[in-house]
Amino acid sequence: MEKYDIVIIGAGPVGLMLGTIMQRWGYKVKHIDNRAEPTPTGRADGIQPRSLDLLRNMGLKRAVMAHEPAKVYEVAFWDPSARGIQRTGTWASCPKFIDARYPFTTLLHQGLIERVFIADIEKNGGRIQRPWTITGFENNGMDTEYPVEVSLAHVDGEARETVRTKYLFSGEGARSFVREKLGVQMHYKDPIAHVWGVMDGVVRTDFPDIKMKCTIHSDAGSIMVIPREDNMVRLYIQIASSTDPDWNPRKSATEQEVQDHARKILQPYYIEWDRVEWYSVYPIGQGIAEKYTLDERVFMGGDCCHTHSPKAGQGMNTAFLDAQNFAWKIHHVESGFASRNILSTYETERKLIADNLLNFDAKYAKLFSARLPSAGEVAGAHKDEPAEENEFVKTFKASCEFTSGYGVAYDPNIFNWSADHSARSPLFLTYPENTKLRTGRILIPATVTRIVDANVVHLEQEIPLNGSFRIYVFAGKPSTTHRAINDLARGLGSKRSFFGAFTREDVDSVSYHERENPHSKFFTVATVFNAPRASVDISEALPPVLARYRDHVYADDIWDHRVPDSKAAAHAKMGLDQDEGGVVIVRPDGYVGCVVKLVEGSGTIDALNDYFGAFVTKKLGGEQAQL
Amino acid sequence: MEKYDIVIIGAGPVGLMLGTIMQRWGYKVKHIDNRAEPTPTGRADGIQPRSLDLLRNMGLKRAVMAHEPAKVYEVAFWDPSARGIQRTGTWASCPKFIDARYPFTTLLHQGLIERVFIADIEKNGGRIQRPWTITGFENNGMDTEYPVEVSLAHVDGEARETVRTKYLFSGEGARSFVREKLGVQMHYKDPIAHVWGVMDGVVRTDFPDIKMKCTIHSDAGSIMVIPREDNMVRLYIQIASSTDPDWNPRKSATEQEVQDHARKILQPYYIEWDRVEWYSVYPIGQGIAEKYTLDERVFMGGDCCHTHSPKAGQGMNTAFLDAQNFAWKIHHVESGFASRNILSTYETERKLIADNLLNFDAKYAKLFSARLPSAGEVAGAHKDEPAEENEFVKTFKASCEFTSGYGVAYDPNIFNWSADHSARSPLFLTYPENTKLRTGRILIPATVTRIVDANVVHLEQEIPLNGSFRIYVFAGKPSTTHRAINDLARGLGSKRSFFGAFTREDVDSVSYHERENPHSKFFTVATVFNAPRASVDISEALPPVLARYRDHVYADDIWDHRVPDSKAAAHAKMGLDQDEGGVVIVRPDGYVGCVVKLVEGSGTIDALNDYFGAFVTKKLGGEQAQL
Repeated sequence: MEKYDIVIIGAGPVGLMLGTIMQRWGYKVKHIDNRAEPTPTGRADGIQPRSLDLLRNMGLKRAVMAHEPAKVYEVAFWDPSARGIQRTGTWASCPKFIDARYPFTTLLHQGLIERVFIADIEKNGGRIQRPWTITGFENNGMDTEYPVEVSLAHVDGEARETVRTKYLFSGEGARSFVREKLGVQMHYKDPIAHVWGVMDGVVRTDFPDIKMKCTIHSDAGSIMVIPREDNMVRLYIQIASSTDPDWNPRKSATEQEVQDHARKILQPYYIEWDRVEWYSVYPIGQGIAEKYTLDERVFMGGDCCHTHSPKAGQGMNTAFLDAQNFAWKIHHVESGFASRNILSTYETERKLIADNLLNFDAKYAKLFSARLPSAGEVAGAHKDEPAEENEFVKTFKASCEFTSGYGVAYDPNIFNWSADHSARSPLFLTYPENTKLRTGRILIPATVTRIVDANVVHLEQEIPLNGSFRIYVFAGKPSTTHRAINDLARGLGSKRSFFGAFTREDVDSVSYHERENPHSKFFTVATVFNAPRASVDISEALPPVLARYRDHVYADDIWDHRVPDSKAAAHAKMGLDQDEGGVVIVRPDGYVGCVVKLVEGSGTIDALNDYFGAFVTKKLGGEQAQL
Repeated sequence: MEKYDIVIIGAGPVGLMLGTIMQRWGYKVKHIDNRAEPTPTGRADGIQPRSLDLLRNMGLKRAVMAHEPAKVYEVAFWDPSARGIQRTGTWASCPKFIDARYPFTTLLHQGLIERVFIADIEKNGGRIQRPWTITGFENNGMDTEYPVEVSLAHVDGEARETVRTKYLFSGEGARSFVREKLGVQMHYKDPIAHVWGVMDGVVRTDFPDIKMKCTIHSDAGSIMVIPREDNMVRLYIQIASSTDPDWNPRKSATEQEVQDHARKILQPYYIEWDRVEWYSVYPIGQGIAEKYTLDERVFMGGDCCHTHSPKAGQGMNTAFLDAQNFAWKIHHVESGFASRNILSTYETERKLIADNLLNFDAKYAKLFSARLPSAGEVAGAHKDEPAEENEFVKTFKASCEFTSGYGVAYDPNIFNWSADHSARSPLFLTYPENTKLRTGRILIPATVTRIVDANVVHLEQEIPLNGSFRIYVFAGKPSTTHRAINDLARGLGSKRSFFGAFTREDVDSVSYHERENPHSKFFTVATVFNAPRASVDISEALPPVLARYRDHVYADDIWDHRVPDSKAAAHAKMGLDQDEGGVVIVRPDGYVGCVVKLVEGSGTIDALNDYFGAFVTKKLGGEQAQL
């Protein structure tokens, strides 16, 4: 029986993100999908600003952008007016208070995005087996290394395979065989369900905001407009709601009916379709799976675990994060770095985010569906004069951080340091008193200059998604921190440090040209000096163990308008002392683990060993540091 | 006998740029190259900042960047010191005083760049016929429409073809059959010739600037270091000069000799090669062809017309501009827009640039080759203390605008308005008194917001390289210019305006979705208002003829650090009145043609008609405007 590290069911966003990562990291992957080919038309299409960061970190952004997706910078709100509808305001899709590299939503057909992942999987020697489906699975304990037996079949019912695997992952979507077989229930938080129509097409119209994202409330109903690639536009229109007196979850509408409805809503503007690319009607409820895994061998993610309305464009983005969160944890367990018990954090972290999403979605959907007072009903208001900002607009604005993807915040746990963590050094820096970085949230973006080639780069993007913890040494002023840096390096050199304990076995034969993992796959180091680039001589400024990461040494010498008066903008943005610096540990998925003061003596390395000691497989520290 | 619009000989940078453009614009192209395949290794590799703009304007930048080229932001100067060599300074490759979108040089193997063009040609139905060569040609006047007969042969000497063409273009490189047959002489301006060695490879070294562009002068000789894609580095080393006492243009050196020489120059640093990708030795002289064409049917461009040392990275960039300059002029003649006599400006414009390049190159090469005083010889200087900035560094810094590609400046002629132009309206704005734009130079870059979708865009990139003149209406404040804009639109509506005279025949059946050329292939219009985006309603702000370019209407509402106090940064950067605006005509290749005041009445349209009237095939204006 063939054995795999992981069997992935489903090649939608969550399955493809996971498959791409596992294939890159050298795992043996069996990946099936029950569709004969990638999504041909329609379905999800929104890539939030934060997801674009992630795709770039994987080197996939350029392939996505090559399709010339639509970019949504602003959302326009349209409300009832005497003459039909009128624009009552606009709001940035990702406002300036969010420090985003790409402050827009990217709209591209799901099938094109899937193909970007598939091409990467194939480049790395993998493939998606289609159209195949899962027919059974069992964690029968007969093989402790590969405990899960999975039965697969061609959808035509003839060819069959049974394989063994370390992990089974279901990215099957809302209708999940795995979830059903496990007996995991979906909780429907909000009893209200909706039937939605969605139509992609090319239109002619004099509606001025047809290339913007718009939420339109009219006396004739509500509609959402979303621009797409290839001059297309998507319309979301609510067909039925469980609050309707004649609620029927099977209620449908023809293409023609939806177009007629849209025409009425858009009055006084006209709209005609040159062609319709895709049209679908589907019921949506806000559901969340009660468990993401039962045995930490069979896991689920994506729509399999959380369903919600499509209008906030969160589905694909949440799926991406599910997959990344899962991938690096499995990787650290399978690499012998982390204890198996870390796997429980997949569910605790990701279910929290799904919960937040559903709460937001329920509120948003309800407000969107609510009929606004028509112009005639607003007592005393001048016709055509915008009313007070309504509840919907207020909710929209308040939710920008969440919907842009930058609001994802994991609770404290073994990875996300807090005062309750087992590591208790007084050197851990806390938010907001001592650092602007928050554990469980992303590293703040900063622009710096790479020493070796003077390239101006985005620091948060410099270490690729390689499965390693990212150790950012903000080294302050070289003259101030010289001794602290050397003490840190000496501490790293100890056999009992996380550095010494997880040194790769082939460390002596690693290529001269290895940039990220010369010592260990457990971590990558980057150092940032508060100094002008040309003044930093790496071999003088850093002890050999840190100088070895020569391609990841930076000068914090680029002015930033968010901290206009600081000399070292990256240090300042992180809220670190510009002279004394600090050490920031970032998880492999880009979320901050902990922030530690950079001091002379063994304090810094001791704190780091304590932090990593909470979840690694070896005991760290404990010997008397000889400093 | 098969007939073509153009036969292109050579698929290096100039031939491929030309072939790509002509194929896109729908011409029937015969394109041959005597090599069996694109450049496999080595040769040119430097894309200057301005060339990256051009590639982006053609939608080809992303494909180039997908190869992860090296980027040179800074150049380091190394000079002799007591311990061997020392860095005496660094300088930005494209300093901040140059307003560049991409302030770096992009380094990528010529073959990869060629393939980007070839893929585009093939996507548009063309191909390069290889390995074929030209064996003869003749402008025999037997066919007035296709006057040139060209004989082609497979390089193995068996297959042969004879075709007729409107134009023959030689992009053959320094050794040109066409140039020789025409009897066009090369002028060698500087009698000094050099033999250069160039080596691409992967190295191990402790030389700290190996990923920077470096010019190194040592007591053991001089060398230039240029980083490349795939972790490679290129070394240029001078092997012989005609100023040497034992000068021999056939002098060579082995790979081993060059490496040994490099090792000596780089002392006290070590350098070892993991592998050598390419090594070549070649003689270089500063030559320029006395003519680029004799009959305005057979043309030449690229290295065929100008040869020089490779160190300033200008060859490919100059070739690109030769091709673009040639392409749009041929296009306007063949489209019936422009008189045939405009073709003479190809040589006058491009030869001037080649002349400038050769002057720069001669000076630069001479200084680079000159032995600098070694540390011991600098009387009174402290050892290891950098000397005064030497002549080489001074020349380098002074030449940044030129080497970045932004220094290209065409002299006044029929396209580049000056007081000597036949159009003499007092409304033409002049530099530096009334505008910061200079005719014959590029449009100043500016960031604006597109009205229809709120996308923040680069104005100078918004109109693609489509062969059309670009009419930028800087419309100032809508309330101020409302009447002037309407008067301009009315003037455009006249049959005797450039607009009316060159209206496309199929104007009534042009697609609703046509963005750039709804009225004519002769021009594309873009309008920029000094107003916040959400305040501009295109159908109210613009008369229908201008509103038709709805995808090219912009709000000048993005702050720019170069004009921090202005409310309308794009207007301010162009040096136009922020309330009253102005009209800027940009040639199809991106160079400013003229700048005209935007006034009420017929003055603006009259001035534009006079400007275009200087070179179009129809008489413009002359009727009494009824305003």
